[in-house]
Amino acid sequence: MKFEVHQTNQDCKARLGKLSLPNGTVNTPIFMPVGTQGTVKTIMPKELNELGAEIIVCNTYHLYLRPGANVIKAAGGLTKFIGWQKPILTDSGGFQIYSLAPLRKITNEGVKFQSHIDGSYHFFTPESVVEIQETFGSDIAMCLDVCPSYPSEYEVAQETMQQTLQWAERARKVKRKETNLFGIIQGATYPDLRKKSAQATVDLDFTGYAIGGLCLGEPSSVTYEMIDAVRDIIPEKSVCYLMGAGYPEDIIEGVRRGVDMFDCVLPTRNGRTGTAFTSLGRITIRNAQYISDFTPLDPICDCYTCRNFTRSYLRHLFIAGEHLGPKLLTLHNLNFFINLIKNVRSHIEKEDFLVWSNDFLEHYTSKNS
Amino acid sequence: MKFEVHQTNQDCKARLGKLSLPNGTVNTPIFMPVGTQGTVKTIMPKELNELGAEIIVCNTYHLYLRPGANVIKAAGGLTKFIGWQKPILTDSGGFQIYSLAPLRKITNEGVKFQSHIDGSYHFFTPESVVEIQETFGSDIAMCLDVCPSYPSEYEVAQETMQQTLQWAERARKVKRKETNLFGIIQGATYPDLRKKSAQATVDLDFTGYAIGGLCLGEPSSVTYEMIDAVRDIIPEKSVCYLMGAGYPEDIIEGVRRGVDMFDCVLPTRNGRTGTAFTSLGRITIRNAQYISDFTPLDPICDCYTCRNFTRSYLRHLFIAGEHLGPKLLTLHNLNFFINLIKNVRSHIEKEDFLVWSNDFLEHYTSKNS
Repeated sequence: MKFEVHQTNQDCKARLGKLSLPNGTVNTPIFMPVGTQGTVKTIMPKELNELGAEIIVCNTYHLYLRPGANVIKAAGGLTKFIGWQKPILTDSGGFQIYSLAPLRKITNEGVKFQSHIDGSYHFFTPESVVEIQETFGSDIAMCLDVCPSYPSEYEVAQETMQQTLQWAERARKVKRKETNLFGIIQGATYPDLRKKSAQATVDLDFTGYAIGGLCLGEPSSVTYEMIDAVRDIIPEKSVCYLMGAGYPEDIIEGVRRGVDMFDCVLPTRNGRTGTAFTSLGRITIRNAQYISDFTPLDPICDCYTCRNFTRSYLRHLFIAGEHLGPKLLTLHNLNFFINLIKNVRSHIEKEDFLVWSNDFLEHYTSKNS
Repeated sequence: MKFEVHQTNQDCKARLGKLSLPNGTVNTPIFMPVGTQGTVKTIMPKELNELGAEIIVCNTYHLYLRPGANVIKAAGGLTKFIGWQKPILTDSGGFQIYSLAPLRKITNEGVKFQSHIDGSYHFFTPESVVEIQETFGSDIAMCLDVCPSYPSEYEVAQETMQQTLQWAERARKVKRKETNLFGIIQGATYPDLRKKSAQATVDLDFTGYAIGGLCLGEPSSVTYEMIDAVRDIIPEKSVCYLMGAGYPEDIIEGVRRGVDMFDCVLPTRNGRTGTAFTSLGRITIRNAQYISDFTPLDPICDCYTCRNFTRSYLRHLFIAGEHLGPKLLTLHNLNFFINLIKNVRSHIEKEDFLVWSNDFLEHYTSKNS
């Protein structure tokens, strides 16, 4: 992997970069659509290409359980298996084990957990999780981490941060030379733990650095404070990934603070449940007010959904339980997020990012509307 | 509507025609994908265009209940509402009232029924059903008919056939001059009733004629016998539509017997439930034998699904409950049916349809495999 920063900003830490990965090049800042089970839900790879997606995120926990690493290996790797010819980042599954598995037990050795699918027992070690991702042929692999829920007591935050560090060291040792492995900074909402975690993770010398354990329900101000606590510890030449972010506002605030990579289920999950992100704020398409609204979801959007369908028809699809509803809203939402990050890049390039983003943050609220 | 037969066949009743409708031209024989609620399930209109679909079938019963005729009228008609710029045939909903409504009561005047959605009561008359379809702006509207289930006693078949005829006469009287209204031939599995129904329907002088009440579980030989019983009564200059057909074999047998139009939920319904129609017969994609099968669904198919994905991945999508599975199988199945009918037309044109179809029927069995 090669990461080149080719433009920085005078007024804030926003920057433009290029990430060269085995399956292609990625422009940063980047938003990565989430394809947990090897598919960005409802969307075909050719549509991801048309939307301008450059990299997607899949999940080791899910794909290890189903269809299994052996199937993906036999297929020739994850990109071949899922029919996506561009880069894939695989999350380690640390977060999923803690949020999905009905039972789990963490020891120094690793984590024993029960599958949320069939109740079977499995054991992940920091080493095995690297190996699985190497079997997948992931362009970027993530270390197995321990991700405490929000809120967390200081002691829990400290313990899980230290366990994550110890596992990171073991993961670092077993990885193949060519594997692009990212370390994950933990420490919950405690700046001192975050700083310790960041410094120790950087000392292990990873290909890139992720800030994990955020966007779990804490106030936005806390998220931003945690980014600020660690950002200057991460070397300027390294890529910085804020895991699980987020709302459009979080992405903008993250870019201002020097974050290069983002991923979030919001555009896909909200698309499936009937919420659209638009330039006018969020729209809940099932609402009765849209029964005879023959305007597009977003008047200034150029996506396939907005060019061809009305709110009235989209509402009908959701009310009638038709697959096409979730599909068309997901398509629109992904277009919204990918366009947002394209705008971010273009305004960094034009050197008016701070002005543009101030204006955006002043007028746009997707969280409370 | 204009219907022109521009090629007939020496060996059988297969023929090539062109149907000119308000929203476009349709080549016959034609297979019409079904979009009951105003969407061909999982498929976008632009994909229908790419597949080569020329006309789709929507349902009056469903669309009248949801979103309601007033919404579709306010949208500017059904094609505008659903974003499909080609012809639409709307079925009258007769069949749906009998198969879906929890309660229904037929009188000479019309049919009172309960909505399967919310239990509300509604009343359809042969006149109101024409008016609703005129509100939709359907390219082809169907008469309200009474469709007995299979098997039916002779007396029931006779009564429902006569009620259908009486209603057809009333529908014929109220239709606007420009409305393309098709009469529906009933009579269950009794050739004498079918002949009477056909003659009396033809005497009412409709724009086209449909054979209804078949493909309901009766043996194929009976379906074909019923077509044979009525086909010569329908004028050669008129288009002939076999409602609800069918399996690829039924379509071929129908074309041989002079049928011009077909519609069926098989490609979409089976696609959603995980069954693919292929040149090698039917495939149930959830079967364990496909876990590590890295070949396409159909080795000779050129659809997006077969060009980009393996059986192993498609199985994974179904097992993991991902929307993309039903979508990709539906896309493939529709391509299979639309290609089948394109092949039918091309072999009629090349004047080797009988030879080609004999070969097809000898090698292809989709019903029992």
